[in-house]
Amino acid sequence: MATTAALSEKQKQFLQNPYVGVVTTLREDGSPHATVVWVDLEDDGTISFNTAAGRAKPRHLEKDPRVSLIVVNAENPYQWVAIGGRAEMTTDGADPQIDRLAKKYLGKDEYPWRNPEEQRLSVKIRPEHLDSSGFDES
Amino acid sequence: MATTAALSEKQKQFLQNPYVGVVTTLREDGSPHATVVWVDLEDDGTISFNTAAGRAKPRHLEKDPRVSLIVVNAENPYQWVAIGGRAEMTTDGADPQIDRLAKKYLGKDEYPWRNPEEQRLSVKIRPEHLDSSGFDES
Repeated sequence: MATTAALSEKQKQFLQNPYVGVVTTLREDGSPHATVVWVDLEDDGTISFNTAAGRAKPRHLEKDPRVSLIVVNAENPYQWVAIGGRAEMTTDGADPQIDRLAKKYLGKDEYPWRNPEEQRLSVKIRPEHLDSSGFDES
Repeated sequence: MATTAALSEKQKQFLQNPYVGVVTTLREDGSPHATVVWVDLEDDGTISFNTAAGRAKPRHLEKDPRVSLIVVNAENPYQWVAIGGRAEMTTDGADPQIDRLAKKYLGKDEYPWRNPEEQRLSVKIRPEHLDSSGFDES
């Protein structure tokens, strides 16, 4: 297992695969709450995911922005990348992002389950911890 | 997504597949720390995993036993079971457990990476939260 400060090129390539991530936020009592998300690697190397206002994840992150995200290779569970850090939530770019993720994960040009009453949110993770397994540098 | 108090029979069957789990513990500062584990469903329905003394997970759990574990179907990421609760660590049965998990995940009768200097630990989760996706009852 390697701990490094920034994603390597191999890790960035890995994150371009449509492997889901497990994101863990903290409930109000500080206990961990895990769910499955689609993962976006933005052009500037920021790792982010998309959610919607009112769900548990953004509610937790408003109280405590600390979050972990781990992406495991669906074909090889011994290869994974995990980051931990602080979440920054924004509505900016959140609608195009969910369409981009629908392309990555479903092969569709538009997110098929869009709900006009729902406010999408993009959650960017400012990394403080980075671990990985199954890369040459491990 | 369904929240129920106990694993259904379908969820128990699901957990007999060799799908890895993501376990999240809390660092001393309360931030979430995620890693990949093999998952055991014990005969009495307890969900547990195996680790070794001195690693980050047991160190974190000694300070704060709160833990989450999520198991995602490797072929269908929209099917998953997540539990959250308190961990109880024991050396009792930890050596047979790692061999049982080697059988489940590697098809081998004995854990091939046993280190005689290492004390294996079995970590049982006493569930307080149970969520799932992709089951009929969802």
